[in-house]
Amino acid sequence: MISPNASGLARILPILDWGRRYNRVSLSSDLIAAVIVTIMLIPQSLAYALLAGLPPHMGLYASMLPLLAYALFGTSSALAVGPVAVVSLMSAAAVGALGLSDSAQIAMAAITLAVLSGAVLLIMGALRLGFLANFLSHPVIAGFITASGLLIAVSQLRHILGVEAAGHTLTELLVALAQNIGQLHLPTLAIGAAALGFLFWSRKGLKPLLQRAGLSANAAGIAAKTGPVIAVIGTTLASYLLGLEAAGVAVVGQIPAGLPPLAVPDLDFAMMQSLLGPAILISIIGFVESVSVAQTFAARRRERIAPNQELIALGVANLSSAAAGGLAVTGGFSRSVVNYDAGAATPAAGAYTAVGIALATLLLTPLLYFLPKATLAATIIVAVLSLVDFSILRRAWGYSRADFAAVAATMLLTLGFGVEAGVSAGVGLSILLHLYKTSRPHVAEVGLVEGSEHFRNINRHQVTTTPSTVALRIDESLYFANARYLESLILARVVGDDQLRHVVLMCSAINEIDFSALESLEAINAQLKDMGISLHLSEVKGPVMDRLERSHFLEELSGQVFLSQYDAFCELNGVCVGPRAEDHATAPGKLHIAQ
Amino acid sequence: MISPNASGLARILPILDWGRRYNRVSLSSDLIAAVIVTIMLIPQSLAYALLAGLPPHMGLYASMLPLLAYALFGTSSALAVGPVAVVSLMSAAAVGALGLSDSAQIAMAAITLAVLSGAVLLIMGALRLGFLANFLSHPVIAGFITASGLLIAVSQLRHILGVEAAGHTLTELLVALAQNIGQLHLPTLAIGAAALGFLFWSRKGLKPLLQRAGLSANAAGIAAKTGPVIAVIGTTLASYLLGLEAAGVAVVGQIPAGLPPLAVPDLDFAMMQSLLGPAILISIIGFVESVSVAQTFAARRRERIAPNQELIALGVANLSSAAAGGLAVTGGFSRSVVNYDAGAATPAAGAYTAVGIALATLLLTPLLYFLPKATLAATIIVAVLSLVDFSILRRAWGYSRADFAAVAATMLLTLGFGVEAGVSAGVGLSILLHLYKTSRPHVAEVGLVEGSEHFRNINRHQVTTTPSTVALRIDESLYFANARYLESLILARVVGDDQLRHVVLMCSAINEIDFSALESLEAINAQLKDMGISLHLSEVKGPVMDRLERSHFLEELSGQVFLSQYDAFCELNGVCVGPRAEDHATAPGKLHIAQ
Repeated sequence: MISPNASGLARILPILDWGRRYNRVSLSSDLIAAVIVTIMLIPQSLAYALLAGLPPHMGLYASMLPLLAYALFGTSSALAVGPVAVVSLMSAAAVGALGLSDSAQIAMAAITLAVLSGAVLLIMGALRLGFLANFLSHPVIAGFITASGLLIAVSQLRHILGVEAAGHTLTELLVALAQNIGQLHLPTLAIGAAALGFLFWSRKGLKPLLQRAGLSANAAGIAAKTGPVIAVIGTTLASYLLGLEAAGVAVVGQIPAGLPPLAVPDLDFAMMQSLLGPAILISIIGFVESVSVAQTFAARRRERIAPNQELIALGVANLSSAAAGGLAVTGGFSRSVVNYDAGAATPAAGAYTAVGIALATLLLTPLLYFLPKATLAATIIVAVLSLVDFSILRRAWGYSRADFAAVAATMLLTLGFGVEAGVSAGVGLSILLHLYKTSRPHVAEVGLVEGSEHFRNINRHQVTTTPSTVALRIDESLYFANARYLESLILARVVGDDQLRHVVLMCSAINEIDFSALESLEAINAQLKDMGISLHLSEVKGPVMDRLERSHFLEELSGQVFLSQYDAFCELNGVCVGPRAEDHATAPGKLHIAQ
Repeated sequence: MISPNASGLARILPILDWGRRYNRVSLSSDLIAAVIVTIMLIPQSLAYALLAGLPPHMGLYASMLPLLAYALFGTSSALAVGPVAVVSLMSAAAVGALGLSDSAQIAMAAITLAVLSGAVLLIMGALRLGFLANFLSHPVIAGFITASGLLIAVSQLRHILGVEAAGHTLTELLVALAQNIGQLHLPTLAIGAAALGFLFWSRKGLKPLLQRAGLSANAAGIAAKTGPVIAVIGTTLASYLLGLEAAGVAVVGQIPAGLPPLAVPDLDFAMMQSLLGPAILISIIGFVESVSVAQTFAARRRERIAPNQELIALGVANLSSAAAGGLAVTGGFSRSVVNYDAGAATPAAGAYTAVGIALATLLLTPLLYFLPKATLAATIIVAVLSLVDFSILRRAWGYSRADFAAVAATMLLTLGFGVEAGVSAGVGLSILLHLYKTSRPHVAEVGLVEGSEHFRNINRHQVTTTPSTVALRIDESLYFANARYLESLILARVVGDDQLRHVVLMCSAINEIDFSALESLEAINAQLKDMGISLHLSEVKGPVMDRLERSHFLEELSGQVFLSQYDAFCELNGVCVGPRAEDHATAPGKLHIAQ
């Protein structure tokens, strides 16, 4: 959405860029998208507040100002910001860990989390730390989302069954459900199962029905997303007419009338300290989810988003959510799909959605009194089960065992120990596995392919080598994690080989040599020198050579630096068998063919 | 020391390998080395126990069994195991953090640390986790050693000045010294300063003196290392003759007579829990120090050491130190130098040293009663100041800012917050900087060098490109940390370029594509397809191609995989300007020369 040539201020406030091109066509597209997203957002915002363990109106409060803030600061034309499932689950876990029982304190903890998350996102944006999100690998994200979806679905079963069951891990939840199954409340189950059944059906069945009723495929597709609204209206009516509240069905109940009063939250320092860790995790997870969605839609429209500006936008969105008494928010996938499909042309669509939610809050809250919580739980279950995708396990297994280990560990730890443990362990394991893989780089001993100037692995190809020279091609950048390995490897190769006079390191795949690796090269050079063996380099890349020239290594190097491995071969052996043989061959050396 | 063809059992018990070749020549070399190392080790073992905040005899107890254990299990012929400065400092910090005041409990905590450290090393060895030591980069080790050396020297000043000054950071130590300087004890200072002066002089001045007295250069060099023993004898005599103990000079005092009783330590579970973290750090630091020393000497003798077997040997050494009531040990640099220079031919030299220390413990302990602690402190100060080397700051700065940041952070945090904070932050920062560097890989847009088949950066060379094709050479393996960056980078390049039809990724420097990067490539492929642009790959390495073939990516790829970038150029543009032009040119395309 942001032009490559946007000016300074417009980079910080992208509305100054796209706002100048805003016209009647954009307005009507944005308005249509806003109406549809508003209808979808009303039940979702209530449901995700419930998921976070908060009063439903906090979901509505989180769906006004944050959308306006994103419209001002955001760079994606399709992203729909607001409460989302995974962030709500993480909020519930973080707030739950504080062990509070007073509902006002619980609400304040959720608001504190939004403040901290907003601050973390703003700081990351200001310091241009968007790259930190890259440390969440795809397998970790996929494992985490699937496990979270499952956890969320199971956590909502209590509202469908009408039993009490608190917990933040799969075991805790299942044990609590099993223990309290005696509390099973049939009227609640009836309404919950009905909503669940309708919602599952509506995902597949509603669109064809609407098409047969004469709607176009696109319109029917969008209208089918209103399933949750139909479920809300239907079960609210049933609840009102059948007097289900009196029968013991939990309903949303009284929602404060009117718009939220804006206030600087009255923060508690000790609470902030305990919530800072979770807030950082929530910020990073929320940012990754949001920026992935935004990037997908930007690519479809050949637009660009600015990840660091997205951090700023989400930061302001969270702070404004807190100011309105709402919970932590981010850009969500499902609503963004609807927003995009409905034709949202600019971030203004979000602003119009905020107005829609404000109108709903002013006018509809009395009607929501009778809405059964079981309906909201059913909405959540159906929404999150679409996130559950165990195929990632099979795909990762087929491609790489290391990636499989990261997915599996993230899933198991998320299910078994909760969201924070899962995602932390996943990130740690990904990094460790990466370091492990690069700590034992592939090193090939290479020889000359006869009739060419190419050098190939002596174990894979028929190549020419000489007993006095060994050429090793290192297929990895050299840095601290593999510096020592290289030392051992080269020593292991040369010890006991008495004919050896030259070791050539072929550096074509080395993109970096850090200070640790430089010291290892110096050690290798000195050790080989003690054995009467010279160390040479070949095919060193420009930037790597530039850096080496800033050290004393090249002065101490016992051998030479050759432009190409072929030059090294010719020079060190005084022979050549390739096409340029006549240029180099001076004295015939001993050659033998390795198979 | 271990033969490449050693059998299974001899790999676990290397003595079975080298023991078979043991002869009278090895015996006499080892005996001479053992006598010299024993003389050096007596004051050092007492001093390092003092540094660890323990009674001096615990140093002697740590200098018998561990040396025997290493002789059985170790693979280095020159390594001298025992108490060393850095590990003793880390023990002091770990035990100090427990806040114990009872000296028996403090001793038990140090023994517990040796048990845990032994267990950690054994487990790492059994699981072949020796590579974990690689995650300590050279700058982090150098920064840590220099800062530790400085901390140790300052911490020993209190023994020289005769004042109380406890602390684990530079500030704590300096403040305590300043506050208690009123306690300054002149007789202690006199003896301490004399020892310090003599020791500093002996490092440089003793060897030429001995050479002038007729000793050979080598013998004089070794004999000059006995400076600490001369200082010990001299100050003990002075202390005895002048009655310094009565004058208030702190002396070593009563040492339990006889050899230590062997016992399974009576461990406390809560204490083990609090010491496990520090024990892991001590194990890794100790292992890195030891294996670096072992590797250096092995290379000089064209021998090999087995790092994972070294873990086992050091693990058994620590457990046996604990069983004898000693503190944590590892292979140290300065004694190994002496051992090597004195001609130690096999690990048996260590076993003979153990016998020497046992004899000293049986016979000499009564004589050590009058030894002033100030002398031991002087020994430590002179030894550790040789570890302090601030030139690493300058060298790292000259080579790379990232490495400089790692050195500086490790030094500052070690001095300011203690050894554990320093080394943890250093490791964390090294990993983070590495990930950051590889998260923004160098990507060059390349074009054909006229008259060749080579492709070079369009910004550095005069090359040929065509408007319909962009070729990007990625100078880094693709993995989770840079997968998303690549997506943004390619989108940024193609958005707005309406003539573009082909994107070729030149993969010659890509050594790995992990699952995250695979999914990013799939996303890039899909996004480019939406824009009507084909994605191609060229020069994919064998192992990378093998892996890609295990996914569906190649089936979904909108373009082709070319063996060489030149093939891609010819095929996609239907033109060729290189030496093989006649093979490929079918229809002339539009060419333009980038400068």
